[in-house]
Amino acid sequence: MRKDGRQENQTRSVSITTHYSKHAEGSVLIEVGDTKVICTATVEERVPPFMKGQGKGWVTAEYSMLPRATQVRNQRESAKGKLGGRTMEIQRLIGRALRSVVSLESLGERSITLDCDVIQADGGTRTTSITGAFVAMSMAIDTLVKEKKLSKYPITDFLGSVSVGVINEKACLDLNYDEDSKAKVDMNVVMTGQGKFVEVQGTGEDAPFSRSELDELLALAETGIQAMIREQETALGPEISARIRSASHATARV
Amino acid sequence: MRKDGRQENQTRSVSITTHYSKHAEGSVLIEVGDTKVICTATVEERVPPFMKGQGKGWVTAEYSMLPRATQVRNQRESAKGKLGGRTMEIQRLIGRALRSVVSLESLGERSITLDCDVIQADGGTRTTSITGAFVAMSMAIDTLVKEKKLSKYPITDFLGSVSVGVINEKACLDLNYDEDSKAKVDMNVVMTGQGKFVEVQGTGEDAPFSRSELDELLALAETGIQAMIREQETALGPEISARIRSASHATARV
Amino acid sequence: MRKDGRQENQTRSVSITTHYSKHAEGSVLIEVGDTKVICTATVEERVPPFMKGQGKGWVTAEYSMLPRATQVRNQRESAKGKLGGRTMEIQRLIGRALRSVVSLESLGERSITLDCDVIQADGGTRTTSITGAFVAMSMAIDTLVKEKKLSKYPITDFLGSVSVGVINEKACLDLNYDEDSKAKVDMNVVMTGQGKFVEVQGTGEDAPFSRSELDELLALAETGIQAMIREQETALGPEISARIRSASHATARV
Amino acid sequence: MRKDGRQENQTRSVSITTHYSKHAEGSVLIEVGDTKVICTATVEERVPPFMKGQGKGWVTAEYSMLPRATQVRNQRESAKGKLGGRTMEIQRLIGRALRSVVSLESLGERSITLDCDVIQADGGTRTTSITGAFVAMSMAIDTLVKEKKLSKYPITDFLGSVSVGVINEKACLDLNYDEDSKAKVDMNVVMTGQGKFVEVQGTGEDAPFSRSELDELLALAETGIQAMIREQETALGPEISARIRSASHATARV
Amino acid sequence: MRKDGRQENQTRSVSITTHYSKHAEGSVLIEVGDTKVICTATVEERVPPFMKGQGKGWVTAEYSMLPRATQVRNQRESAKGKLGGRTMEIQRLIGRALRSVVSLESLGERSITLDCDVIQADGGTRTTSITGAFVAMSMAIDTLVKEKKLSKYPITDFLGSVSVGVINEKACLDLNYDEDSKAKVDMNVVMTGQGKFVEVQGTGEDAPFSRSELDELLALAETGIQAMIREQETALGPEISARIRSASHATARV
Amino acid sequence: MRKDGRQENQTRSVSITTHYSKHAEGSVLIEVGDTKVICTATVEERVPPFMKGQGKGWVTAEYSMLPRATQVRNQRESAKGKLGGRTMEIQRLIGRALRSVVSLESLGERSITLDCDVIQADGGTRTTSITGAFVAMSMAIDTLVKEKKLSKYPITDFLGSVSVGVINEKACLDLNYDEDSKAKVDMNVVMTGQGKFVEVQGTGEDAPFSRSELDELLALAETGIQAMIREQETALGPEISARIRSASHATARV
Repeated sequence: MRKDGRQENQTRSVSITTHYSKHAEGSVLIEVGDTKVICTATVEERVPPFMKGQGKGWVTAEYSMLPRATQVRNQRESAKGKLGGRTMEIQRLIGRALRSVVSLESLGERSITLDCDVIQADGGTRTTSITGAFVAMSMAIDTLVKEKKLSKYPITDFLGSVSVGVINEKACLDLNYDEDSKAKVDMNVVMTGQGKFVEVQGTGEDAPFSRSELDELLALAETGIQAMIREQETALGPEISARIRSASHATARV
Repeated sequence: MRKDGRQENQTRSVSITTHYSKHAEGSVLIEVGDTKVICTATVEERVPPFMKGQGKGWVTAEYSMLPRATQVRNQRESAKGKLGGRTMEIQRLIGRALRSVVSLESLGERSITLDCDVIQADGGTRTTSITGAFVAMSMAIDTLVKEKKLSKYPITDFLGSVSVGVINEKACLDLNYDEDSKAKVDMNVVMTGQGKFVEVQGTGEDAPFSRSELDELLALAETGIQAMIREQETALGPEISARIRSASHATARV
Repeated sequence: MRKDGRQENQTRSVSITTHYSKHAEGSVLIEVGDTKVICTATVEERVPPFMKGQGKGWVTAEYSMLPRATQVRNQRESAKGKLGGRTMEIQRLIGRALRSVVSLESLGERSITLDCDVIQADGGTRTTSITGAFVAMSMAIDTLVKEKKLSKYPITDFLGSVSVGVINEKACLDLNYDEDSKAKVDMNVVMTGQGKFVEVQGTGEDAPFSRSELDELLALAETGIQAMIREQETALGPEISARIRSASHATARV
Repeated sequence: MRKDGRQENQTRSVSITTHYSKHAEGSVLIEVGDTKVICTATVEERVPPFMKGQGKGWVTAEYSMLPRATQVRNQRESAKGKLGGRTMEIQRLIGRALRSVVSLESLGERSITLDCDVIQADGGTRTTSITGAFVAMSMAIDTLVKEKKLSKYPITDFLGSVSVGVINEKACLDLNYDEDSKAKVDMNVVMTGQGKFVEVQGTGEDAPFSRSELDELLALAETGIQAMIREQETALGPEISARIRSASHATARV
Repeated sequence: MRKDGRQENQTRSVSITTHYSKHAEGSVLIEVGDTKVICTATVEERVPPFMKGQGKGWVTAEYSMLPRATQVRNQRESAKGKLGGRTMEIQRLIGRALRSVVSLESLGERSITLDCDVIQADGGTRTTSITGAFVAMSMAIDTLVKEKKLSKYPITDFLGSVSVGVINEKACLDLNYDEDSKAKVDMNVVMTGQGKFVEVQGTGEDAPFSRSELDELLALAETGIQAMIREQETALGPEISARIRSASHATARV
Repeated sequence: MRKDGRQENQTRSVSITTHYSKHAEGSVLIEVGDTKVICTATVEERVPPFMKGQGKGWVTAEYSMLPRATQVRNQRESAKGKLGGRTMEIQRLIGRALRSVVSLESLGERSITLDCDVIQADGGTRTTSITGAFVAMSMAIDTLVKEKKLSKYPITDFLGSVSVGVINEKACLDLNYDEDSKAKVDMNVVMTGQGKFVEVQGTGEDAPFSRSELDELLALAETGIQAMIREQETALGPEISARIRSASHATARV
């Protein structure tokens, strides 16, 4: 058993509060254990310069932590005057992951920006951001559906993410900060509702890992991501969830 | 009567949730109408270079808005690579205001940083930040009191803030965003529990204002700030509030 | 009496040298005591992006100090790679103040940039900049008048500014650097020729101030600003001054 | 067969020229097909601030491309004034990967910086950089060995890297630029001489991938990395290679 | 005789490898002694904003050194976030020098960017860059000639550059790093094939120099530049060289 | 004769106002024709990091133009967030030139910073800055002499500078802006009181120049610099001038 009483294959408790922000087209407060992230989706009727004139949309993400989201206060990147490498890496990952389940053609020449702002951090902020951002994005796309701005539904599947890692030679699911800092292998996995991989990022900086460890971690991740997707369905409600499920099955048949 | 049903001399509803963040020494979520700000206080056992070796502490503030705190998404200042003039002006104001009710000598060589992060904006974000940051700071100082790190209590009085303005020739208290954008005069006032002015910032960019208008606005502000301070007392609880009241009376007698 | 022999209600000697720069549309060297500021006005037949297509003009300001304008040399903001908070605050104030006495509609789609460069600093650099920039702007607008580019005269009133403060419990007018660093309350006031307030910025960082102190300071400021406006009239000469006076009376009647 | 005549499981031709630079402690020009990277290793007798006083060393990397390493000229990041997200991501990866096969304790309080400068790019620049940087680092450490500055040999194993991807439903090894831009899955793998994973980074932005595809890619990557490590051995020569092999076996026994 | 065995009037050995880069329109690796610079020429069918609509082209240059091109590693300017003064000075010089032998009218509305990246530095990097960049530019223009994009040949003459300096009271040609750091006078000269001066930059920071020293240095520089131009002719081959010679004679007759 | 009535070998009128700034250790307003530069010298009892612990001092310079010093307003480099190449080139030149006539050993571990701020530009701003900065520096050193902080007088000679150029095939001295923009050759020369060269920077971007043109320009420059040095002597007064003359003779004898 783990320090916080969980089994190796157990996630922390998950809570997704929708309509968290009054102004955004889609927004959630997602809590996975003590990790809390506000995800908002902004729809804009324009695309970045490199996408212009292609009749396609764009989905991108930005990630930030409040200075005191962590145990020790971090200097703001706005005050430093530049984004750190970790921030860039994470926001590139979130955007890439979300685009894998959106048909940019069906979205049309508009963009959706997902802002993931960590208000409290306790491990797994990037995977929590992806899981929450998917819900915020789906809500924003629902407003476009209701405004009849889309001729084809652009979401192609659910998308969830968790971290896994090896602690004391045991593969564990959904690491909190304390576990994460002790893990010898650290892996973030992003997966679709159909169980296909979108991102697999495993790092063994402190100790390289074997193929069998990798296999064990990937299996755990799949379990965890399925749990996250069930939470997304609950949060989005039956109507939107059914639409995504249906699109997912259509994709799978192809 | 105003659009949202308030009288000219009425503030919006106020809510102060303390212990909002797990990691910070002091933290609140303050809501004034639809304006919501997370204020956290971080205590560090060091002072900035320009204060070193004087046996005195330092209190400073940083202010930021989430990109989609507003109706239209704003670009992050971290992505722009620099703080805007408005941000700098506001965080200088918050820091200056808080220092006016703290004895830096009694604080000792340590610093308190107040992070004010607006998660939803509907007018009055700077005054709401000041009112909330005072509570977060008082909580952080309370932890120092409990750890017996202070020989003398450093807070000298309560500190609250509201905005006032002239709309359709009427002086109004606590403007929301809609009112603020129509106001011909816009004034932010910061005041102590003893009713003394700490900051008076009135701007008549669209129309200069007369002395009698100024007098009317200052009277309204006083009413509003007294209401804010009552909310602070409730949030801080009887023990901390009594300590501040007592310090305030001691100061007044001097 | 004050250290430099002045009464509490006395400004320092003022000198405004017009046509100080050969290239600018309007320019002055303004000296208030030992504070010396070069103010130049540049007219450009374009407006910033956010003003385009509205048929209106724009007035803005930039403020800077030579590195050795002060007793101790300051690092250049160009070398630091960013503007400080104080600079931004001041240049926003100057621009806002000047716009309060200009009809942007009457100016037409062109912009006037006021550059206020402090070549020697001895207190009151922001208020001196405003007083001087008004003269430079009026000269630049006069060139537009002479070139018959304006269908309606855009200046609506005179505009002057002084600092006031409380030193040794006495309210004093037009503080020099030495006084400013000792003042417990520091206030900058901007006022029109009609005696209306454009900006009131009072700060009691070291000691909050009472309502009666505020009243006393505002009265002193009015006296000082009237003196500044008389200097502006002398510098601008009878023709331009008469045109502004006349516009001011027209505004007042409305 | 592939466009350039290779089998799916075949790497491009590899060439590693050692002692490429006169000044650096270790340096190579590594060529993998038309991708050419200069890797230099700089030893400095100091560590970054966050490592000070721990008696341990540090290994880090920087990555850059000459502006015309690519088909279309890229703007220099020095001229833009900031590093892009892709650059940061890659240099973080290179440093992390190399640290996984170095005992920082055995290195002592000194740092090794690996500069990976791509002078011609044709796919796989990050994996080529890792493979080349390992050789440059081993050469630099050899100079420390010869100067008898180390009490224990700090390298614990060989380290190689290749890219793999799925093109036209076929898993392929060592993609060139043309293949990379068409691949539906793109994976970079870093592995030790003992065949353990250090980094697994797979991305299916254009199409999520199944578990069986993942397995096939990992198997291909292993083949390719073994080939890269054989090239490293040849380049480093028998003496250094034997020392690394011996350290690797010692580690494996633990 | 000098440390490396050369006479005062002797350059180091020169090698110019053309077609060094696969992607660029023109490229060389130029080696002058141990100084090695990759020069690439990029042709783009557009001009910078300040040149638009004039029917003329533009030639510009960028200069950089790999961090470990020197004995001690230099921090990257991309990591510092800005170009240093030395870099700017050098790249301005290279661009200006090349433009002196190109008719921008004949080039048409397109630009050529010369990237000079020093991969190993041993003195004379700016003069070596100019000599090499001229060859790369000539190759790029040759591709335009072959594509029949030019109605008139735009190069007007050869262009070479060397450094000269006074060491131990002796004027010496083509200083290496060791000599350069001891030289009391340091001069860089750029000259055309016709023997006319394009740039003369002499600096006597450590010791002012007399007119006769200047004369002696200029004579040496002329000898060295003629040698550099012979190397350029060999590298460019008889066809391109003849075209430049012919343009040069045409210019001289005017 | 030239447009402004001068002979080819005639400088514009020169005026050097000393003690221009109240705070600086040395300061002048130098006017050469319509070019006006404020030069201030700041003495600080510290040296930059790279000079520490050598028992030697440092002399450096910074250069800037007010935005409207020119016919068209330039954006401030502080607002752009970086120094331009031209500014860096000029301030490096000024610093280097001044150091050539100062014994850093005799100065002791202190630094002198020369700020050259162009308040009006009409050609020759860099040469005017050098001529003016020499006077400001000499005044600042005089304060050190009077405070008996120096054991040996550190200035070794006078230092002046002028521009020369070829206009309509005629070599001309001290070009104004109008002439400068038409000149086919542009040369800046810095020379000591003993007539030795410190800097020779000639550029023939528009047309390469011959050896005889170079000789003619250098002769003109010498005449002009001697005139500038006579103005410096007048400005500095007999006492300081005699001290410099005497140091210059002592140097010459060596």
